[in-house]
Amino acid sequence: MTFKFKNAYIENTSLIAGYYEKLSPYAKYFDKIYEKDFYFKEKSLEQAETKLLSESIDLLLKKSKKTKDEIDVIIAGDLLNQITSSSYAILNKNIPFLGVYSACATSNESIIIASAMIDTKHIGNAICSTSSHNLTSEKQFRNPIEYGGLKPKTATFTATGGASILITSKKTDIKIESGTIGKIMDLGVKDANNMGAVMAPAAADTIARHLFDLGRDINYYDLILTGDLGIFGKEILKEFIKKDYNIILDSRYDDCGAMLYNLEKQKEITAGGSGPVCAPLINYGFVYQMLKKKHFKKVLLVTTGALFSPTFLYQKNNILSIAHAISLEVVEK
Amino acid sequence: MTFKFKNAYIENTSLIAGYYEKLSPYAKYFDKIYEKDFYFKEKSLEQAETKLLSESIDLLLKKSKKTKDEIDVIIAGDLLNQITSSSYAILNKNIPFLGVYSACATSNESIIIASAMIDTKHIGNAICSTSSHNLTSEKQFRNPIEYGGLKPKTATFTATGGASILITSKKTDIKIESGTIGKIMDLGVKDANNMGAVMAPAAADTIARHLFDLGRDINYYDLILTGDLGIFGKEILKEFIKKDYNIILDSRYDDCGAMLYNLEKQKEITAGGSGPVCAPLINYGFVYQMLKKKHFKKVLLVTTGALFSPTFLYQKNNILSIAHAISLEVVEK
Repeated sequence: MTFKFKNAYIENTSLIAGYYEKLSPYAKYFDKIYEKDFYFKEKSLEQAETKLLSESIDLLLKKSKKTKDEIDVIIAGDLLNQITSSSYAILNKNIPFLGVYSACATSNESIIIASAMIDTKHIGNAICSTSSHNLTSEKQFRNPIEYGGLKPKTATFTATGGASILITSKKTDIKIESGTIGKIMDLGVKDANNMGAVMAPAAADTIARHLFDLGRDINYYDLILTGDLGIFGKEILKEFIKKDYNIILDSRYDDCGAMLYNLEKQKEITAGGSGPVCAPLINYGFVYQMLKKKHFKKVLLVTTGALFSPTFLYQKNNILSIAHAISLEVVEK
Repeated sequence: MTFKFKNAYIENTSLIAGYYEKLSPYAKYFDKIYEKDFYFKEKSLEQAETKLLSESIDLLLKKSKKTKDEIDVIIAGDLLNQITSSSYAILNKNIPFLGVYSACATSNESIIIASAMIDTKHIGNAICSTSSHNLTSEKQFRNPIEYGGLKPKTATFTATGGASILITSKKTDIKIESGTIGKIMDLGVKDANNMGAVMAPAAADTIARHLFDLGRDINYYDLILTGDLGIFGKEILKEFIKKDYNIILDSRYDDCGAMLYNLEKQKEITAGGSGPVCAPLINYGFVYQMLKKKHFKKVLLVTTGALFSPTFLYQKNNILSIAHAISLEVVEK
C-alpha cells in the first residue's frame, strides 16, 4: 500500500546520540552527543533512554522556534516494552499522542501516519519521535553478556539516541513524497543474533512493492538506504532482491546500520548498528542535510524492523519482520 | 486534537470471546465464544491470544464477503510485549500492517488512524484489530496468583477476546463522525490494582477536549461509554469530570468494563473488565447493533489506557494513562 502525499514537508529534525555514536562518520550531523556513560545523569538506563527521546523533542521545538502548544500531535514508539520511553518522554509535553510500534521500522511508520493525517488537513503539523538505548535493549531482549561471552559476527549493536522530526503542511525545501506500508514476513529465521537475515526479505518486498505501486524503476532514486540490516544483512538484501525481484541495488544503495559506526576502529561493533534510532541517526542528519544542499534530490528510505518477541522465540516461533518505506524529494522552486 | 471525518464508515465488525465472557449480559452480540479453557487448542497462552485476533480478522472478512486482497491495511495492537499477538496473527494475512499501542485505548487509536487515512482517499478501507487474554496479561503484568492470594476489590479482570472492525469509504448506515487523540496524564497513582483511578483523569480530559473542540454539550450524545474504568473508576470519573470540568455524566453514561461481566454471578470479577478487547466487546457488538437499529443515534466512545510498565513501576514511577475518543452517528437517509 503506497501513498503519494500531497502536502507533507520536513520542517526540521533533531538528533541526540550516545557515546559509541561519537565515533560515527556521520557524528557531525548530530545535534548533541552524550560522551560519558550510558546513564546521562539519570537513575536508571530506562530513564536515560527516556531522556534522549524527551530532549530530542525539546531541541526540535527550539530549532523550529515552536512552542509545545503549536504542535498538533506527537507520534512515537520505541523498543521498550509498552513503548515506555515514548510515553514517559511525552508525558510533560502536553501534546496529543499516538503510540506506534514496528520495532526498528518505527520511524517510517510514524512519518507515514503523520503525513497522511497532514494530507487530510485536520492537522497542520506533527512531531515523530523514536529512541533506542544499547543497554536497555540488551537487558530486555538478550541475556546480559557474561565475562568471556562473545557475540557472533552477525550480531548488530543497538544504537543509543533520541531522534525527532517535524512534519508540516507548510511548504519547505524537502517533501515527503510517498510512503509504503510493509507486510509482515517470515523467512524461517530463529537466530536473534542475525537480524539482518531476518529483515532483508521484508526490505526486498517493500522496495519491490513501492516501485511497482508507483510504476518506478529503482534508478529513479539517487540514494536508497535500508535501516539496520548491517554489513551482512545488506549483502543478503542485494542478493535476495536481485534473485527474487530482478532489482539491482548498485552503489547508490547502502544501509544505515552498516554506515553508522566506524567499524575499523570500533571492533566491538561487529555487523553494524541497529535499533529504532539507527536509521534516523543517518536519515534525519546526513540525508536531510544532503537533501538541503541538493547533493541528493530523490531518496528512498526503507526502515526495517524485526518483530522480535523473546516469549514467542522461547516457544520456538520464528522471528517476523516488516519494512516501511518513505521517499523524500527536494522541492524545485 | 479532534478530527471530523468526512468519509469513514463502519462496514462490519467481528467479536470472538473467551469463556468468562460467556456470562456477559452482552454475550449475544459476540460472534463466537470459546467455552472450554484458556488455550483454544493452542500450545501456549500467547498463541491462544494470537488465535483470537487472527480468527476475528478471518471472520470479519467472511461476514463482509471480502477477500484479504481487498483490504488495504490492517492497524492493530495488543498488550503483549512487542504487540506480538497482532504481528503473529497478521503474518498470514499478507496485508500491509501498522502496529499501534495505547494499552487498552488501542482500538480507538487504530480507528482514528484508519479514518484519517481513508479521508485522504489513498485507501478505501482498513481493518482495525485488537485482542487481550486474561492469562497472558496476568503472566506479563502481574505476579501469578498464589494459593490464598486475593486481589483487592478495585482490581479489574482482563477480558479475553479478539475484535475487528472494517472501516470503509463506502457509505454505510453508521459513520465514524469524529476522533479525539488524547494526551498522556499522570495523576500520581502507583497502584497496579486500581487502574480505574489511573485512567479516569485521562478520560475526563479527553471528553472535555472533545466537547470543547467541537463546540458541543455532553447532551449532544445519546450514549457515552468509557472503555475499562470498572465500577469504581466509573464513579471516580463522574466525580472528577463534574468537579474539574463542570460536565455532568447522567444515566446516558456507562463504562464497558462495568458492563461486560455479570458481576452478581461472577463474584471473582470484582471491579469489572479491562484490557484492549474490553471496550470493543461492547462497542463492536451491542453498541454497533443498537446503532443499526437506531436505538442510539449519536454515541461517544472513549477508550482508556493505562500505560503501565512493570519496569518503570519497579523504579518507583507513577502509572501514566491516555484516552482516545471517537463518535459514531447513524447516517440519516
